[in-house]
Amino acid sequence: MSLPTAAEDLVLGLTGVIGLPALTEAAGAPLAAEDIAALVEEAARFTAEKMAPHWQEADRHGATYANGTVTVPPHYRALMQDWIDSGWQGVAAPVEHGGQGLPHALWIAVTELASAADMAFFLGPVLTAGAIDLLVGHATPDQSARWLPQLVSGSWTGTMCLTEPQAGSDLAALRCRAEPLGEGRYALHGQKIYITWGEHDLTENILHLVLARLPGAPEGSRGISLFAAPRLLPDGSRNALRCGGIERKLGIHASPTCVMLFEGAEAELVGEPGRGLNAMFAMMNAARLAVGVQGVGQGARALALAEAYATQRVQNGRPIARHADVARMLAEMRAITLAGRLLALEAAAALDRHHLLGEEAGATRLALLTPIVKAWCTDRGVETASQGIQVHGGMGFVEDTGAAQILRDARIAPIYEGTNGIQAIDLLVRKLGRDEAAAMHALLAEVAATDPRLAATCARVGEATATLLALQARDPETAQSLAAPYLDACGWLLGGWMLVRAATASPDRAALAGFYLARLLPRAEARCQEIAQGALLPLPASP
Amino acid sequence: MSLPTAAEDLVLGLTGVIGLPALTEAAGAPLAAEDIAALVEEAARFTAEKMAPHWQEADRHGATYANGTVTVPPHYRALMQDWIDSGWQGVAAPVEHGGQGLPHALWIAVTELASAADMAFFLGPVLTAGAIDLLVGHATPDQSARWLPQLVSGSWTGTMCLTEPQAGSDLAALRCRAEPLGEGRYALHGQKIYITWGEHDLTENILHLVLARLPGAPEGSRGISLFAAPRLLPDGSRNALRCGGIERKLGIHASPTCVMLFEGAEAELVGEPGRGLNAMFAMMNAARLAVGVQGVGQGARALALAEAYATQRVQNGRPIARHADVARMLAEMRAITLAGRLLALEAAAALDRHHLLGEEAGATRLALLTPIVKAWCTDRGVETASQGIQVHGGMGFVEDTGAAQILRDARIAPIYEGTNGIQAIDLLVRKLGRDEAAAMHALLAEVAATDPRLAATCARVGEATATLLALQARDPETAQSLAAPYLDACGWLLGGWMLVRAATASPDRAALAGFYLARLLPRAEARCQEIAQGALLPLPASP
Repeated sequence: MSLPTAAEDLVLGLTGVIGLPALTEAAGAPLAAEDIAALVEEAARFTAEKMAPHWQEADRHGATYANGTVTVPPHYRALMQDWIDSGWQGVAAPVEHGGQGLPHALWIAVTELASAADMAFFLGPVLTAGAIDLLVGHATPDQSARWLPQLVSGSWTGTMCLTEPQAGSDLAALRCRAEPLGEGRYALHGQKIYITWGEHDLTENILHLVLARLPGAPEGSRGISLFAAPRLLPDGSRNALRCGGIERKLGIHASPTCVMLFEGAEAELVGEPGRGLNAMFAMMNAARLAVGVQGVGQGARALALAEAYATQRVQNGRPIARHADVARMLAEMRAITLAGRLLALEAAAALDRHHLLGEEAGATRLALLTPIVKAWCTDRGVETASQGIQVHGGMGFVEDTGAAQILRDARIAPIYEGTNGIQAIDLLVRKLGRDEAAAMHALLAEVAATDPRLAATCARVGEATATLLALQARDPETAQSLAAPYLDACGWLLGGWMLVRAATASPDRAALAGFYLARLLPRAEARCQEIAQGALLPLPASP
Repeated sequence: MSLPTAAEDLVLGLTGVIGLPALTEAAGAPLAAEDIAALVEEAARFTAEKMAPHWQEADRHGATYANGTVTVPPHYRALMQDWIDSGWQGVAAPVEHGGQGLPHALWIAVTELASAADMAFFLGPVLTAGAIDLLVGHATPDQSARWLPQLVSGSWTGTMCLTEPQAGSDLAALRCRAEPLGEGRYALHGQKIYITWGEHDLTENILHLVLARLPGAPEGSRGISLFAAPRLLPDGSRNALRCGGIERKLGIHASPTCVMLFEGAEAELVGEPGRGLNAMFAMMNAARLAVGVQGVGQGARALALAEAYATQRVQNGRPIARHADVARMLAEMRAITLAGRLLALEAAAALDRHHLLGEEAGATRLALLTPIVKAWCTDRGVETASQGIQVHGGMGFVEDTGAAQILRDARIAPIYEGTNGIQAIDLLVRKLGRDEAAAMHALLAEVAATDPRLAATCARVGEATATLLALQARDPETAQSLAAPYLDACGWLLGGWMLVRAATASPDRAALAGFYLARLLPRAEARCQEIAQGALLPLPASP
């Protein structure tokens, strides 16, 4: 038998599980199931032909830095042109700025396929998409007209310049400053670190979106504003900003992670003064969702490699795919990958219900699902990558197969765009806290009603929800030390929900759903037990 | 407050938990608690001063290959001499061959400290220790006299040449052949892969222990004999064997992983013809135990780095070690590392009870614990290394901190010396199968009697044991697909047992034990639920 490909699963998810045809029909721009399938298959073809074959070569070449110049793998130049020509960058961008205005769920499908094919390359387009989202929400019409067409076409890339050495998870500690030059112009001074694709020469320009403080701005997060500074000024001269070095990293070697030095760089204010963090957070749901999908993509690539290896590697007279423990690993990888894939689409559908239909419930559901997708899918991406190595045995540890590269690349996703610990605390403190977990209880009721096999676990997660909310009021330290286990419980439960829905939409997914419910769902129960017991004991003293 | 160091925990484990003073007294060579502490502290000093500081430099230099020559980091030459001078290689080797004849548990303590300090370097001594064990059991007095003093002193290293391209987990498929030359001499022909420290020039000679077939030997595992072939012959000339290349690997970069070509290499038979696999398996308990301890050592290094970073990195006005989710990660890392450390010592104590006291029960307990230590501790080593990266945030993904190197290095341990899947099947099929799980039920009864908080989980693991034994008789494929979850359940339970015993020995470990029982032990329960439910369903069809 042949297994469903990622593209087949994505089509099933978009059409049969999240109901994109009905959603788009309600939005007055109907996409039939066949249209959706054609788009996904086209994205699958593009990523498989143009990106996936050269992914190891890109890793081996890596990005290098010398005298302010960043060099990326040479074949990336043609790939970037192909990417621009393909039009994928603008698939979900507004039509008025040159985009296709299609549902965000389609961009999420593209994100999974492209992340699996070459994550290091695709981080450029991912950051550009974030910049587009941000400018669509906050730029003036004049700024939009000058910047968005280039970003939407892909002929410029965008960056997000947030982190500084002393300000990682704590953005309120930012020091980068913006000096007013008059006429709406500013000069930026400061250093930013971990700037993905901060410098390169694959496109005609780079637009840096930079958090900085205006003179006299208050301390803390209210003093932070958002600025845009292009690499090249409109007259073609270099702006006063440069790359001061790149990091030597575990993975995503071909993606330059830059130290960016702003030495009086000319910039414009984007949005209101002092509202920079709000603007950033507004686009963060989409960016965090995209990072979760990177986890799914890395898991999917690991699975594809492991399946190919296990099918051809014979030991004891049969392919190792038929050895019981390898078959177990492959089944886990398949079930978890499909669960993450569909959960990300479910979140994207919530985003589309909000954006395309104006449903407030979509925004609420998205806010709840986003930290879960970001953290649960990226944790699973790392584990699935590691399991993919294990399927290969000794060959998995040798770099030639690519299995090891997937683990190296996947390992960043639980860290950036808000560490997974921050996602967990966001879920507990903000997402449950803001409505006394009403949205979560509504989701749990919906899940429980889907299939009686999920109801008992829903009840346990409901109890854990109540336990943690009460504990957060009384002992926030202990409560927050249980936030990550809680998020994990939600992820395992919602993954089961997605597989049950996939099995309903297509009975050939029923065996995998049954496997998930029997073997993986108990992990949610263990997390609930951990919460119940952990809530009674403070953490042991730390140094 | 200051936290216990690895050495303090090892001393507590050796003296207060596994009772080495009493064991050695019964063996007629008493070691007082102070003697044990002095030995462990000396090993800690040696590894901290000589090995740990240059571990990243070793990784960056790596091992390189050109024209048959392997080059390892230059500072390894002095380190190898220091290692030889220290006498640690022979700590548990027989006195009659130049060793110190001390308990194996002390070698295990050295193994943890040295693996944590520089795993790539220490793999040479680990393989040499395996060669010593094997020769002590199987070499003739004449062979022992010619080889063991050099191996025990460390002035020669030993290798284990098992794997061939077509024969990884399936050693019965070996093709390497031994051609008799008369007078007990043989010429070896064939290719071996994944030979750790197969070629180097740090010591005066290398003794290769090689599995090969004699002419006319039967197919399969009964046709395999064991041979010894030195790199340099007694007259100082090069033997007809060479390194054909080394692997480009995810980690342990400074440990050359060699393709070894035997081109008529002169060799001697070790042990009986056709008994090569048995000889190998005889030393495998010790070698697998040592690999499990490598997992502990990598976890311990990850913990030490993460603690140091989290204590000095300030965000939101306090060290991140005091942020709830980071504190949670550090507590998990501490609890799991201590559990693995003590579990490995418990297995080593069983080995010593067998070797030093002749207790058959020691051999039985060792056989049962070995696959659990090998697989559970190495899986935890990878997870703890990954969690150590997470504690560092973005810095963890940058190679400078060393956190990433630990993950790269730790990832090999679940693969070599029998993959963790093979360990799980060994536990189910051989270790439970041979006495209808009598030894396991005895262990569970002992664990349950230690602390009432462990009794419920012991009962669940007991049920899982019975379920899997019955299933193995009727549907071995499904049973074996649940072997890894079963081993994992045993590991989580036994880890809790060890922490409870540590708390009894030293009340300042009680908080960590309580944390483990509340928060980590539920993972054993989840695995038991997985087994109960998974036993009712076959795996989904595989390609």
